[in-house]
Amino acid sequence: MKKLGFIFFLLIFVHTVSFSQKNDSVVLHNIFTEALTNYTAYDNLRYLCKNIGGRIGGSPQSLKAADWTKKVLAENGADTVYILEHMVRNWKRGGQETGKVTKSVSGKYNLAVCALGGAIGTGAKGIKSQVVEVKNFDELKKLGKDKISGKIVFFNRAADPSTYSTFPAYGGAANQRFIGASMAASYGAIASVSRSLTLADHDFPHTGIMHYIDSINKIPAFAISTKSADVLSKLLKEDPSLEVYLKSTCTEKEDTASYSVIGEIKGTEFPEEIIVVGAHIDAWDNGEGAHDDGAGMVQAMEVMRIFKTLNIKLRHTLRIVEFMDEEMAQRGAEKYAETVKNKGEKHIAAIESDCGGFTPQGFCYDAGPNVTEKLEQWKPMLLDYGLWLYLKGHSAVDISFLEGQDIPLFGLMTDSQRYFDYQHAATDVFEAVNKRELQLGAASMAALVYLIDKYGL
Amino acid sequence: MKKLGFIFFLLIFVHTVSFSQKNDSVVLHNIFTEALTNYTAYDNLRYLCKNIGGRIGGSPQSLKAADWTKKVLAENGADTVYILEHMVRNWKRGGQETGKVTKSVSGKYNLAVCALGGAIGTGAKGIKSQVVEVKNFDELKKLGKDKISGKIVFFNRAADPSTYSTFPAYGGAANQRFIGASMAASYGAIASVSRSLTLADHDFPHTGIMHYIDSINKIPAFAISTKSADVLSKLLKEDPSLEVYLKSTCTEKEDTASYSVIGEIKGTEFPEEIIVVGAHIDAWDNGEGAHDDGAGMVQAMEVMRIFKTLNIKLRHTLRIVEFMDEEMAQRGAEKYAETVKNKGEKHIAAIESDCGGFTPQGFCYDAGPNVTEKLEQWKPMLLDYGLWLYLKGHSAVDISFLEGQDIPLFGLMTDSQRYFDYQHAATDVFEAVNKRELQLGAASMAALVYLIDKYGL
Repeated sequence: MKKLGFIFFLLIFVHTVSFSQKNDSVVLHNIFTEALTNYTAYDNLRYLCKNIGGRIGGSPQSLKAADWTKKVLAENGADTVYILEHMVRNWKRGGQETGKVTKSVSGKYNLAVCALGGAIGTGAKGIKSQVVEVKNFDELKKLGKDKISGKIVFFNRAADPSTYSTFPAYGGAANQRFIGASMAASYGAIASVSRSLTLADHDFPHTGIMHYIDSINKIPAFAISTKSADVLSKLLKEDPSLEVYLKSTCTEKEDTASYSVIGEIKGTEFPEEIIVVGAHIDAWDNGEGAHDDGAGMVQAMEVMRIFKTLNIKLRHTLRIVEFMDEEMAQRGAEKYAETVKNKGEKHIAAIESDCGGFTPQGFCYDAGPNVTEKLEQWKPMLLDYGLWLYLKGHSAVDISFLEGQDIPLFGLMTDSQRYFDYQHAATDVFEAVNKRELQLGAASMAALVYLIDKYGL
Repeated sequence: MKKLGFIFFLLIFVHTVSFSQKNDSVVLHNIFTEALTNYTAYDNLRYLCKNIGGRIGGSPQSLKAADWTKKVLAENGADTVYILEHMVRNWKRGGQETGKVTKSVSGKYNLAVCALGGAIGTGAKGIKSQVVEVKNFDELKKLGKDKISGKIVFFNRAADPSTYSTFPAYGGAANQRFIGASMAASYGAIASVSRSLTLADHDFPHTGIMHYIDSINKIPAFAISTKSADVLSKLLKEDPSLEVYLKSTCTEKEDTASYSVIGEIKGTEFPEEIIVVGAHIDAWDNGEGAHDDGAGMVQAMEVMRIFKTLNIKLRHTLRIVEFMDEEMAQRGAEKYAETVKNKGEKHIAAIESDCGGFTPQGFCYDAGPNVTEKLEQWKPMLLDYGLWLYLKGHSAVDISFLEGQDIPLFGLMTDSQRYFDYQHAATDVFEAVNKRELQLGAASMAALVYLIDKYGL
């Protein structure tokens, strides 16, 4: 009897689970169908890229994009749209940079270079000097002041292509960009040029933020395209005393006022408990910021539109946060996290999309084992939409400022194979985004929001 | 004691498995590293696309491609390279097709059209008539001979974008292309125009094979781009009596001689037992056949190169089969299957890549439950390389001719979101292929070959 009773319990339980899961499956199906049949995110991305374009924090374009974001959030169904004011850095690229081999045994060559974000310029006259090529900071140290002083340091360590995910490739070569200039300057270099952080073999330099170490004097810092890096390296082998001319006219003024944008649909049962879906408004000025992070921006707003269109009333408040200044100094993220803390707002979860508008593969997350367990339960349903990958750690930059407030954080993970072909380069344009891949990302986040809202974490 | 004995057995077993799996993991790691650091498949694809280009069966280009295939197989390490002679259909597109709205209340418009493969032409003078738009064969039947006779039938059922995989979208709209002309002709139509089988909203018509039903008279058959289809549909709403002019000069001559190409590395232990990796040489003439199926072709040959380069000696014979004539009549596949049967050759498995050079997701397979079990065992290792999807059925077209010979068949499954943006259209060019995504496909097949060779099926 006992056994029979247990079997009966199991049958009931299994039945309940499968009924509920069937119901959930229908909702997820509707979410994905809506995303794949109405391309609002894609249409919004076209507008953002083609009518506003590159929009680094502090630029008029970034303010135009923020203003447009308010409009789209209202159109997509927000009850409330408001802004979060904060300062941002105010760095300007100035005119088009110049890079040239002016004298070598093989003649003159143009080099595709651009200033790194936050770098000082060379001034209008530019600088000209011999070049020292190194692969890493150890080589720099070995060469020492004698061989580096007065020269341009050329960091030419290629990203390692051998891993399945391209993020380790990026991470493994990133210190050249981040602090290469200061490291070179500490040995007396007059400028640094670092190989672009991309696995693409092309002639577009990839910009991105760089940092000066406080105690070391600032020197101009450039990125060079992978093709130009290969050319320069080859020429240096033939002629180590060749000369390179570099010009950049970037400047940085006092911090300036800007804002992040927030839109909400109040929860029906727990209006004071919030699920955040976010991305960042600002994007580098040399492209259209399509994958980084126009894709995330329009996807986050699309999550709201999907729920509104399907008339799914969430129990918790859905809050779309479009952060300003992720690329330079994350002032929007900082301000938001501070505000949440000061107000004591309860956040159930925060999700961010900042890995490009590619086919989603799953989520990375910063959260405890209870979240791992929930994801395991939901995975069979999410697998139908290609969401197979759930990794702990490295959720996303803006929401990482919420760490320490006991909020589960999720980053949308996408197929990374092509991401660094575009990130921070002139190739990051609307045409590089596929409409279905983009829309799937929005649906994936909406599916996660739906499950979190229904079952908690 | 019994329990302890069992635990001891488990420990031994687990230890053996994990040692073996660790070893396998190292080999798989080496396979993927080789594929991601030496881009031979990608370089070969560039050559194929740019120096040979479109290569429909029976064309000089197809023979040029077949000849080049022999060379690459030898370069990639084949012990033996040989050909399998067979006839192929001999259809020629002729000149560039014309499609025009010649008279409507809104004026004249050009329409992007192309002849479907295997269709008869209109002749050099072309044809001009009114147009009847339908969504399916039921609507055709309802309209009947009275309303269709003497007119052009325009099949305008869009592919359904709502499924995650794009193959159901293709399949659900494909009958318009396959037999639309004969269905229209059975009601007296003088030509058929069918909406391109793509989810892309662009102005490129997508060709592909069509079939005439024997008892029905043949009429010219065209594909129209999705954008032109939308334009034509809109114009027809304004002016149902508008006229369209169509011209195609395609012809079909007697079948002609061609061949498929085979390269082998003999197995060290079981040289008479064969693992096939295949793809198809021929490709539609209106593009470069980059994704369909240049990608598969170079990937199959890359599998051989990877084993050769890593000096992995397979126990079974690795046979690369590059089939001719997949697009028109699968005569290469037919001939190969017949040869295998006649010679009584033992095949351990056959794998084909014909879903484009996109990020691989896993394998579809036609095989028994023993294969399902093996794939389940291997899945944890393959997951490291994004191979999460294992589906029964629909392995691939060429190897499907081996059905009934008790051979497990596998198709490489790739991310399908972008596939039909390119398939059979002028957009299917080398530039549409990402080098990493392409190389991952080769490595995925090599990984499967390695596991099958080691553990059997």
